[in-house]
Amino acid sequence: MINSENEIFFSESFPFWKALSSDEKKLINNNTELKLYKAGSTIHDSTECTGVLLIKSGELRVYILSPDGREVTLYRLGSGSTCLLTASCILKNITFSVMVDAEVDSEVFLISSSAFKELKNKNIQVESFSNDIINCHFSETMWAMEQILFTSFDKRLAFFLLEQSEEKKTETLNFTHEYIAKNLGSAREVVSRMLKYFQNEGIVSLARGSIIIKDRKKLEELK
Amino acid sequence: MINSENEIFFSESFPFWKALSSDEKKLINNNTELKLYKAGSTIHDSTECTGVLLIKSGELRVYILSPDGREVTLYRLGSGSTCLLTASCILKNITFSVMVDAEVDSEVFLISSSAFKELKNKNIQVESFSNDIINCHFSETMWAMEQILFTSFDKRLAFFLLEQSEEKKTETLNFTHEYIAKNLGSAREVVSRMLKYFQNEGIVSLARGSIIIKDRKKLEELK
Repeated sequence: MINSENEIFFSESFPFWKALSSDEKKLINNNTELKLYKAGSTIHDSTECTGVLLIKSGELRVYILSPDGREVTLYRLGSGSTCLLTASCILKNITFSVMVDAEVDSEVFLISSSAFKELKNKNIQVESFSNDIINCHFSETMWAMEQILFTSFDKRLAFFLLEQSEEKKTETLNFTHEYIAKNLGSAREVVSRMLKYFQNEGIVSLARGSIIIKDRKKLEELK
Repeated sequence: MINSENEIFFSESFPFWKALSSDEKKLINNNTELKLYKAGSTIHDSTECTGVLLIKSGELRVYILSPDGREVTLYRLGSGSTCLLTASCILKNITFSVMVDAEVDSEVFLISSSAFKELKNKNIQVESFSNDIINCHFSETMWAMEQILFTSFDKRLAFFLLEQSEEKKTETLNFTHEYIAKNLGSAREVVSRMLKYFQNEGIVSLARGSIIIKDRKKLEELK
């Protein structure tokens, strides 16, 4: 159920909102829940048809998951953004599935798939909004893929280490190889192999659970 | 201009065709060309807005191109298929661009972007068809990406070498590392490094311009 304060948020987030009839608004009102998700919790699992998400506050991460548990981040969504791939059951020809986690504590409006579908079938503006959102998701996904496929891994790893070192103001980064892999959309073994190569080149030294930057200049040249 | 034989093909390929008014059909008729493309030729370059393609015969390959010339195949389209990403200028929120080549000699109907856009804006069935096609392209792209990102490269290379060796009935494959990289959506250096590893393991031996399978059993175990 949406209260009047939230209705303002709906009208700002959904360009079609003002064109809805009172019955259509009621349909959404009666089929929407405001949910709170803790940082790190999973909002949508690829096996379900969770519904359409409208993010009130916080940040969500949309990613794909390999059979062996590797994650590749497609894009992130902030306040005012809509996620439709969490309702892929109502989207014709969408045959893949994604995972969605809360990156920080987040407030999310969850609109039931069936109510949204009914509205989409009735109202051309809702249909058109949905298609615009899907095109957006497609474009953002392609951007992420191009980054992963076309920027060579040594460059991306060098960039990541330097960025983290500057942010944390330290030469010693306490990261597991698994953690770096997740962040760079790669596999743990690939990260380990490249770090070993960096170590052989005298760029970093490796200890259990940490990476120490030894030659910042060489690392910067790799970028 | 579409003749009556081709009109049958249009009505079979476009689910909206029969619902068009005679004026709408005329709009398409007057803005469509049948073009012949030789195998290997480029039909669509990412910088242009070529138009909507309907493939009469042959096969097209849709791919993305890195700044340094690497190709990653997204999907292939055969007879009766429509390609919309070649008209991305008329698609809201599609901000990436693809390349399209003819894989074999192909006959392609090229519908002008502006005529298709006019039809799409007028006719809800055309709009809906377009969105279904985009969702299809999105799903096929995700499938390709999951293959590239989630299947480890040694497996994919082993699979490729065995498949080619069986197809060509030889243990000696005359492939450049560049050629293999293109086919597997990888970089030449990655292919070279993995082939060197295979050589060290006694699985293949490498000579200028060719790869000789030495231990088929080990290669099959990698798959």
